Amino acid sequence: MRKIAVVDVFFSPEHLETIRQTAQRCGFAVDFYTDGVLPVQRAGEYEIMYGRCPADTLRQAAALKWFCCSFAGADDYLSDDVYPHPGVLLTNSSGAYGPTIAEHIIMVTLMLLRQMPYFQEVVRQKKWLRSGSMRSISGSSITVVGTGDIGTNFARRAKAMDARIIRGVRRSQKPCPPHFDEVYTTDQLDEILPKTEILVLALPSTRETVGILSRERIALLPEDAIVVNVGRGTAVDQDALMEALNSGRIAGAALDVVVPEPLPPEHPLWDTKNLLLTTHISGNFSLGITRDLDVKLFCEDLENYTAGRPLERLVDRKLGY
Amino acid sequence: MRKIAVVDVFFSPEHLETIRQTAQRCGFAVDFYTDGVLPVQRAGEYEIMYGRCPADTLRQAAALKWFCCSFAGADDYLSDDVYPHPGVLLTNSSGAYGPTIAEHIIMVTLMLLRQMPYFQEVVRQKKWLRSGSMRSISGSSITVVGTGDIGTNFARRAKAMDARIIRGVRRSQKPCPPHFDEVYTTDQLDEILPKTEILVLALPSTRETVGILSRERIALLPEDAIVVNVGRGTAVDQDALMEALNSGRIAGAALDVVVPEPLPPEHPLWDTKNLLLTTHISGNFSLGITRDLDVKLFCEDLENYTAGRPLERLVDRKLGY
Repeated sequence: MRKIAVVDVFFSPEHLETIRQTAQRCGFAVDFYTDGVLPVQRAGEYEIMYGRCPADTLRQAAALKWFCCSFAGADDYLSDDVYPHPGVLLTNSSGAYGPTIAEHIIMVTLMLLRQMPYFQEVVRQKKWLRSGSMRSISGSSITVVGTGDIGTNFARRAKAMDARIIRGVRRSQKPCPPHFDEVYTTDQLDEILPKTEILVLALPSTRETVGILSRERIALLPEDAIVVNVGRGTAVDQDALMEALNSGRIAGAALDVVVPEPLPPEHPLWDTKNLLLTTHISGNFSLGITRDLDVKLFCEDLENYTAGRPLERLVDRKLGY
Repeated sequence: MRKIAVVDVFFSPEHLETIRQTAQRCGFAVDFYTDGVLPVQRAGEYEIMYGRCPADTLRQAAALKWFCCSFAGADDYLSDDVYPHPGVLLTNSSGAYGPTIAEHIIMVTLMLLRQMPYFQEVVRQKKWLRSGSMRSISGSSITVVGTGDIGTNFARRAKAMDARIIRGVRRSQKPCPPHFDEVYTTDQLDEILPKTEILVLALPSTRETVGILSRERIALLPEDAIVVNVGRGTAVDQDALMEALNSGRIAGAALDVVVPEPLPPEHPLWDTKNLLLTTHISGNFSLGITRDLDVKLFCEDLENYTAGRPLERLVDRKLGY
């Protein structure tokens, strides 16, 4: 019988039951590895794998036709070297992370605009100080680079918080996605950076996105600009950003992704001024809604796969998303 | 000529011009005290005062008919003792603070749900730790006590972030205000507290709101509940809340208002577990939108006053709001 390996630690009994029933309907048997470990010697049994899988295991999966990774950033799975043969289909779970990462962006943006790290330090020192200037999402000018699931979820929330204008930036010119006021292509970025108060990067790591926020582009941002990155650390010229923050050239930044990860203890990012650093937690898997969506999206594509329809979340391994 | 004293430090040149023109149209001369100090010996000249004024000055204002305070919580101005005669009208600037305080509530709610104080401590120790459970506004059950400007502004934003249900609680049964799913009166609070994950208090300090979140009511909250207070510290049984937080009986709290203010350095609140304490900054005046609204609301009521219409933001000094 055709077989699926499900390899991850986050599943509830309901999730397992949903996957089992969908697989049955599609003519597959399922083995669950809910400790997150698939023994290498069993890798050859599976036509489909869903979850987290080291490359060493994937390479041994001689019968593999489709790998669905249970997270959004599939950059570790783009190379042909990862697979037993080049024809393996790769899908990701982009679509499951929009709500949680959008909430992270709203939170850190407000923390920067409202000087929360300063006021937290005041309280740590048991001082009752109240003065300090604040700004607002209300009335602000926002640019979101990356108009996928995460960018769109954030734009919807920022609009409801009365942002003045939300510009989306993406690779190709297509109709304006919902919740954005205007849409631009990447080569127009230099025009809109000087008008941007809140710059959000929500991009996969691809040949085109590496270094997209270059030293030259950081120099185009106004003094009151803040930068939020939730995609991949490679999108930013990190040295140039640290200089801009330490010198006060821009107002602040929130980085949830950096280079390298994990960040070594001696790295200067830890001590950079006006930087709200987090440890790649914005897509935290503990949100029920994220886990539920992840399972739902896999099951949808399993039905597509069985029916011979195109997979919804297929990653173009050359483009990188 | 009839005269107005404008006494506060936040006005821009445009604000002063707007007030001057409105006053002229209404037949008033205006004196501006933009250092925030009105000399007591001049207090007797004014029929109207707008801004911040100590009671000592107000009491000397023998000709005063209307005092418009430039903030929302007018609890220091309720007593007859504050005024030269009991007939002085009091208005507040509720309506100017909704956007900024709603952003504060969204921020601290997300910080508590997403364990941000823990993750900030991780980064302070230069550790790259990623695990920790998180929750979301998306799908949550919210109760907002106080459905005025602040509560309504928050409810609108929380709804856009996909809260599952937002209940409003207020003094009297009236039609459901916008952005709330259901509305209850205060005496129904005990029924809905056990179903509340996020409890927001946005109340003025009045006889009816003092102690509204009593020890008994805190005991009705579920273990995963968080409490956010942005109104007045008097609304909460602070000792009972500290006990509930220190023992882990509820998940967390964010207090922007406490008793007493300023909080003395030896007070146990500073060291309470799972408490995100801020120093009464949620209504921070530095937001342009707050200042603009404040001036606009005063000018509207100045037109009302001159035309003999009721004042829009009149405070019932017995009720307290």
